[in-house]
Amino acid sequence: MSSKQEIAAFIAREFPQTRVQVLEAGGMAATVAHEVGPDELRPGGTVSGPVMMATADVALYVAILGEIGIVPLTVTTSLNFNFMRKPSADRRIVGICKLMKVGRTLAVGEVALYSEGLPEMVAHAVGTYAIPPGARS
Amino acid sequence: MSSKQEIAAFIAREFPQTRVQVLEAGGMAATVAHEVGPDELRPGGTVSGPVMMATADVALYVAILGEIGIVPLTVTTSLNFNFMRKPSADRRIVGICKLMKVGRTLAVGEVALYSEGLPEMVAHAVGTYAIPPGARS
Amino acid sequence: MSSKQEIAAFIAREFPQTRVQVLEAGGMAATVAHEVGPDELRPGGTVSGPVMMATADVALYVAILGEIGIVPLTVTTSLNFNFMRKPSADRRIVGICKLMKVGRTLAVGEVALYSEGLPEMVAHAVGTYAIPPGARS
Amino acid sequence: MSSKQEIAAFIAREFPQTRVQVLEAGGMAATVAHEVGPDELRPGGTVSGPVMMATADVALYVAILGEIGIVPLTVTTSLNFNFMRKPSADRRIVGICKLMKVGRTLAVGEVALYSEGLPEMVAHAVGTYAIPPGARS
Repeated sequence: MSSKQEIAAFIAREFPQTRVQVLEAGGMAATVAHEVGPDELRPGGTVSGPVMMATADVALYVAILGEIGIVPLTVTTSLNFNFMRKPSADRRIVGICKLMKVGRTLAVGEVALYSEGLPEMVAHAVGTYAIPPGARS
Repeated sequence: MSSKQEIAAFIAREFPQTRVQVLEAGGMAATVAHEVGPDELRPGGTVSGPVMMATADVALYVAILGEIGIVPLTVTTSLNFNFMRKPSADRRIVGICKLMKVGRTLAVGEVALYSEGLPEMVAHAVGTYAIPPGARS
Repeated sequence: MSSKQEIAAFIAREFPQTRVQVLEAGGMAATVAHEVGPDELRPGGTVSGPVMMATADVALYVAILGEIGIVPLTVTTSLNFNFMRKPSADRRIVGICKLMKVGRTLAVGEVALYSEGLPEMVAHAVGTYAIPPGARS
Repeated sequence: MSSKQEIAAFIAREFPQTRVQVLEAGGMAATVAHEVGPDELRPGGTVSGPVMMATADVALYVAILGEIGIVPLTVTTSLNFNFMRKPSADRRIVGICKLMKVGRTLAVGEVALYSEGLPEMVAHAVGTYAIPPGARS
């Protein structure tokens, strides 16, 4: 297992251009937030789909690293998204991940996405990551 | 229906920061390409997942606009991705979309994603867009 | 809105061959159970995938009817499944649905599937239903 | 690799209650057909969703066994469905699977579902199967 600090340092070092911040990690869960500025908006004054997708992907990755330790080659194998409501243009996107399974070779989790501080879910994701053989000690 | 030129101009005007280029549109299909540079890479020398997701999302949007005309408020409702192979770090990501249904309120299509010039599919997406009521003339 | 009794009677009348029972409905949620006997098993002494898929599909349908009333032509537009653990061969499959959105034309929900009485989720589903225009009073 | 005859015999022996018939297998592809009778219909005179889901699941399984041989413990890990048109009540459901990847531990494929003899796709599926370690010779 890795601490939130170790994972945040790993993400900052390996993905220097990321606009996602690790807020919490551990206990089969994680919370992350994606900055929202001009680059993240699309016409109509809303956050673009890929921003929400990136947030969900990182939330899953962080939650899994919290369980198995820093295993960089853990990779996404599938992701499913449902987009439900228009996010606010002036709030960060927050992703709250809960893992449903961390097996020997596959981990599965879901992510609820919100405009920070607002109660209604804007999108929902479910994803699967492949864990490299032998990575879990 | 919109021509490829009209759609490319619309995308360039409304999404000025996009790194996706419209190559073909029409006939229930579209082909787009996403530039790949330092910002699109992740550790291990591969293209990041969100780049592939953005490519698929735009490919679907372009293919649908090719059928229904420029309807900006056509929005993604669901997207499903399977990531199959590591993309090349020095080639554009090309997305080839084929629409399976364009109904009155929903359009469904699939996207095959490749590293440009290489034969093996790196990822596959299926997505649904909601068409605003009354948008189809 | 429909009561649990109304929905259970509707399901029994319209789907006479179903092996799914409505346990709860209302409050943006539903719980259903699928009988498991020889017809539901597959080699290896486990419940077949289609049994779990049918359970999830009915759980979503029941939860939506609980919100919008008996609208038979509400139909599934997309379903995503992740299968995580081998279900027990001698317990019913229970599906617990929580709706995330009930809009004018689309409803979205997730379903957690369990072997009855056991704590670990065996599968997870997310689905979208289309609500016919004008159905919501 | 297994021949179509070997796979059909395996399916008939291990899934005696199945209503799915193997029509073709091999070359990273498979075609199967599901009988449609009173048990497969739902109100409105159409084929039930779970029938289409079962057809897609078997089509993927048969296509994979055609590549890796008879490995019964190959199991579905994820399935995504989009339902597009109402199937005919008096025609078999045909599923045509094309595999996109058969790796060491995961296989991915898509399935187009039709009412037999009609040109328009009624539903589309994408699925992932886990191949047990050591199963591929």
